[in-house]
Amino acid sequence: MIPGKNTLLETADRIKPLIHRTPVLTCNAINEITGGSLFFKCENFQKAGAFKSRGATNAVFQLSEEDLARGVATHSSGNHAAALALAAKRRGIQAHIVMPDNSSKIKIRAVENYGGLITFCESTLQSREDTLNVVISKTGAIEIHPYNNHQIIAGQATAAMEMIEDYPELNLLIAPVGGGGLLSGTALAARYFGDHIKVIAAEPERADDAYRSFISRSFVPSVSPDTIADGLRTSLGTLTFPIIMENVDDIVTVTESGIIAAMRLIWERMKILVEPSSAVPLAAILEGKINVSGKKTGIILSGGNVDLNELPF
Amino acid sequence: MIPGKNTLLETADRIKPLIHRTPVLTCNAINEITGGSLFFKCENFQKAGAFKSRGATNAVFQLSEEDLARGVATHSSGNHAAALALAAKRRGIQAHIVMPDNSSKIKIRAVENYGGLITFCESTLQSREDTLNVVISKTGAIEIHPYNNHQIIAGQATAAMEMIEDYPELNLLIAPVGGGGLLSGTALAARYFGDHIKVIAAEPERADDAYRSFISRSFVPSVSPDTIADGLRTSLGTLTFPIIMENVDDIVTVTESGIIAAMRLIWERMKILVEPSSAVPLAAILEGKINVSGKKTGIILSGGNVDLNELPF
Repeated sequence: MIPGKNTLLETADRIKPLIHRTPVLTCNAINEITGGSLFFKCENFQKAGAFKSRGATNAVFQLSEEDLARGVATHSSGNHAAALALAAKRRGIQAHIVMPDNSSKIKIRAVENYGGLITFCESTLQSREDTLNVVISKTGAIEIHPYNNHQIIAGQATAAMEMIEDYPELNLLIAPVGGGGLLSGTALAARYFGDHIKVIAAEPERADDAYRSFISRSFVPSVSPDTIADGLRTSLGTLTFPIIMENVDDIVTVTESGIIAAMRLIWERMKILVEPSSAVPLAAILEGKINVSGKKTGIILSGGNVDLNELPF
Repeated sequence: MIPGKNTLLETADRIKPLIHRTPVLTCNAINEITGGSLFFKCENFQKAGAFKSRGATNAVFQLSEEDLARGVATHSSGNHAAALALAAKRRGIQAHIVMPDNSSKIKIRAVENYGGLITFCESTLQSREDTLNVVISKTGAIEIHPYNNHQIIAGQATAAMEMIEDYPELNLLIAPVGGGGLLSGTALAARYFGDHIKVIAAEPERADDAYRSFISRSFVPSVSPDTIADGLRTSLGTLTFPIIMENVDDIVTVTESGIIAAMRLIWERMKILVEPSSAVPLAAILEGKINVSGKKTGIILSGGNVDLNELPF
């Protein structure tokens, strides 16, 4: 069942002692450039370096005693993998992680550091799912899907909940969209707790399945995503797609060069490290796809896990 | 006269509405690696990207009406230059900036963006001072020295004052040392406002004039500094040296590779951009030059102005 208002409140209480309440930063220079009033929710400072710790923690800390003994498993291009491995480690159970073999090295190392057992696969959804099925049939582990899971969606919602609590005057929220867990949670949080907050998603042109699904009102899978925003290569899920159709106001797409320029701007002006996926909302503003003039706009900086040996600038 | 306790309190009041009260961050991963309990004062988030805005603002906003009309001038390898240009712009006056021709491009651009008029010189102290004298004799501008000025020292002291106010339990403060403005201010703040706080300075081996001056108890100039920590190439001044001799407990030096490794650790684990000079205190801990075990240690991250096209990793 789609998480309701009370479920989100219970989720926030459950994970509060286990995650960081991340800061919200503003930047005069970027406000001047965009003509907006932007509030950046810094999930790059979250545990394991991304918002994914919220959902993974929420799911792992609701497992029954019986399920705990079986461990958890997932497929993920990186941040959910590290977040699940860390949540499992803190709960004292084993995490089995299926990762595409083109995952960034820093994300692979993070999973290893948190004690996750990695099985590599090809980067297609088919290969991820097939490999995960093999791992689960061997180990009996409980699957914790990176986004197509209501506990995950509820966990990701807490980033926007905190932001709205800190800044109730926000009238627009922008989140990046990959599988749609963060976007679904953000949209539910805006609906339940916001005062007429619009929610817009930003997506790379070169992984625009959510945009095409949203426009056509029917699920379009991500076939050959080819974007630097490695967190956004996945397709929407059967649980996230209907929440998004119902609760998101618009989805826009951005170019690769726009993502890199926005990422650089955040690094240079805000002095913080964000990964390419985090820069997609600001790229949408800079490319004129979202008008923030006269609005108070919250942007979720989804994560900060970048490989310093492979920077795009 | 060396700034007293009341002068520092007046300084803090004067500049409070004009600067950021920067956050203090902690990092579990770095605490585990170092065995310490470290508190990082994020002056990389300060206006113009460095603590230098504190001193420059304090000096510019004490100018008499008559002096305001003359404008201000300085020589600086970068951060003081940008900070003075910004403070002058906000006060509505002209800043004349003498910069070594090997200053980083991002720092030159910052001065230009803030409306500072730049005159380039060679990177020796002699060339800086000669060029500045020419500029002053032409323009009549008031010199605001980057560190050998009690108003500057008082301004820089406010970073440690804020930190001690936030964390009165600190028992060690570590600051990098170049010309000694930040270090002098930090040491005075610790003496006036701290509860037996030790103060240790960290300096690059390849620009170790402060270390040699401290050990020999007599001023040794920086002759051919050759360090990636571009903010720390200057010599101590006639005002900073005695304050440091009287109030600093120790000075240690670090290698270039140690600075780069510490900088990378801060970027990767804390997800923030700091410039090489900022990483020198953590490098001293990682190289075993300062023992932080069992102590609550405050570290001043002096600035975040790095050129992303010229990263050391």
